[in-house]
Amino acid sequence: MPGYPKSIERLISELQKFPGIGKRSAERIALDMLKRDAKEALALADAIREARSSVKECGLCHSFSDEDICDICSSGSRDRNILCVVEEPKEVYSIEATSDYNGLYHVLKGKISPLDGIGPEELTVEHLLDRIKKEKFGEIILATNSDIDGEATAVYLAEEIRPLKIRMTRIAFGLPVGGLLDYADKLTISRALEGRREI
Amino acid sequence: MPGYPKSIERLISELQKFPGIGKRSAERIALDMLKRDAKEALALADAIREARSSVKECGLCHSFSDEDICDICSSGSRDRNILCVVEEPKEVYSIEATSDYNGLYHVLKGKISPLDGIGPEELTVEHLLDRIKKEKFGEIILATNSDIDGEATAVYLAEEIRPLKIRMTRIAFGLPVGGLLDYADKLTISRALEGRREI
Repeated sequence: MPGYPKSIERLISELQKFPGIGKRSAERIALDMLKRDAKEALALADAIREARSSVKECGLCHSFSDEDICDICSSGSRDRNILCVVEEPKEVYSIEATSDYNGLYHVLKGKISPLDGIGPEELTVEHLLDRIKKEKFGEIILATNSDIDGEATAVYLAEEIRPLKIRMTRIAFGLPVGGLLDYADKLTISRALEGRREI
Repeated sequence: MPGYPKSIERLISELQKFPGIGKRSAERIALDMLKRDAKEALALADAIREARSSVKECGLCHSFSDEDICDICSSGSRDRNILCVVEEPKEVYSIEATSDYNGLYHVLKGKISPLDGIGPEELTVEHLLDRIKKEKFGEIILATNSDIDGEATAVYLAEEIRPLKIRMTRIAFGLPVGGLLDYADKLTISRALEGRREI
């Protein structure tokens, strides 16, 4: 780096650790922070500290929450008959952003990954099975990702849940809307063909 | 936003204030900060605080510095015969990254902008003229940007410096007109330095 003072270099390297922030953007953000009012730059430092200290894990769904139980789990207007199982809290927000889903969630906090030494015990699988037994859902949507580990996790969960005789579904994988067939990878095209429906 | 806890919403909105961070990246970074070890997220908060408290303004060139006088101004190996005048500290780093310039700098801390009520008094112009009188430079490079205010600032400085009978140059606009120095690639900046002309 071109001779930044040490504390700026440190700031740049800390910024680069976050997703989508490359070297150039880290430099630009760091220099911008120093040019601004101290108040504005420190507001971000405070917001990070506050979020880290006040955001808890929801005791029911394991997503992020300000309270012991999150807004979705404690809401009176959600459909308590349907449960969507995702890997990470961020996926709850991705699904919420569509406004197409009004059921409940369960965050696994990862996926089964033998190579990384992550088995069902490292995830919230036991609590998921408990919830399914107690909360009497009519449908469980398995919305783990389509990579090998995500797929294996869905298969594992399906086997665990099947004896409970509850309707289980898997989210559809196929071509993204607006995506072009000749830009899609082979696996996506295979999935799109496999999941085809009558019209 | 899709029902984030309040402290996450605040973090996202603070992140969005910085250059190049849109809504989607702010969300991604915020959720990533919460997923990581507390230590890593807090390291950024600390780096921001530390940079804000320990970075000073160099007493000579007005760029950022860890000490009262920055590394460039206090270096024994810089060419003290040539002074490059830029608007902002970030432009010092952009020029340093080319390794094509070995002289000294003077940071104006902005540009003359009558519409924003910024005149020469709001900038470090007086100190610049003092330095030119005392430090006996052989050449002054005016490296303000090519937008209207940057150009007007160069013209104003040229008029102030001309009576001092020192060689003055303006960086060449091999830089795309309307483009900003700190967005330019190194080669473009090198060309602009190389092609500078008498004014």
